[in-house]
Amino acid sequence: MYALGRHLLLELKDCNKEVLDDLDFLKDCLNEAAICCNATVVGESFYHFSPYGVSGIVNIAESHISIHTWPEYKYAAVDVFTCGDTVEPEKAAKLIMGRLEANSYSMIELRRGIVEDSRVGCATK
Amino acid sequence: MYALGRHLLLELKDCNKEVLDDLDFLKDCLNEAAICCNATVVGESFYHFSPYGVSGIVNIAESHISIHTWPEYKYAAVDVFTCGDTVEPEKAAKLIMGRLEANSYSMIELRRGIVEDSRVGCATK
Repeated sequence: MYALGRHLLLELKDCNKEVLDDLDFLKDCLNEAAICCNATVVGESFYHFSPYGVSGIVNIAESHISIHTWPEYKYAAVDVFTCGDTVEPEKAAKLIMGRLEANSYSMIELRRGIVEDSRVGCATK
Repeated sequence: MYALGRHLLLELKDCNKEVLDDLDFLKDCLNEAAICCNATVVGESFYHFSPYGVSGIVNIAESHISIHTWPEYKYAAVDVFTCGDTVEPEKAAKLIMGRLEANSYSMIELRRGIVEDSRVGCATK
């Protein structure tokens, strides 16, 4: 069996709360994360909430990278969803964790789109 | 314990393949889904791939709704990620499943951002 996509779901805790509220910083961070994992950016949408918090999504040719932050809890929910065998989503995850100065985290991986076609790049284990 | 967000992950199979390749249809569909679950749209990004397939994300004040389609497999990966107690993400999921004419699906829910603050709306069970 093969999967069309890999979806990393990160719970980032005890982060730098100033960074979690900085839209420009997070926009740069997610775009850099896309580049460092060999993805191609095709669009983005970022929004700063009042009084605090940011939602940001980078649309990549290989799916998406998203972030939702709650500075008041020093928490961010990050998703790195990629398809194809030319990207390395772990690299994006690692870059984001570092930039947000997450002192605690959890990460799970889900395989999305299970098919029986061996031409797709991602074999399930 | 309480969760800041609810994240529904849908695997939609045996869908209408023409619909899965129609960017304008999917853009309308995700925006309608946001409205029907009582979310507030704050941005979007949609992209059509060559030769086929669409990636689309609607950024909502309550997090995001995303779709990635593989018409060649009649498959779509849909995420409905919401926070707060005024939205009903199941309604968005149901609308999207219907519009894509999914004959088979699976759905899992993850609670994101577990905190000990009872002021957040979503109690874990």
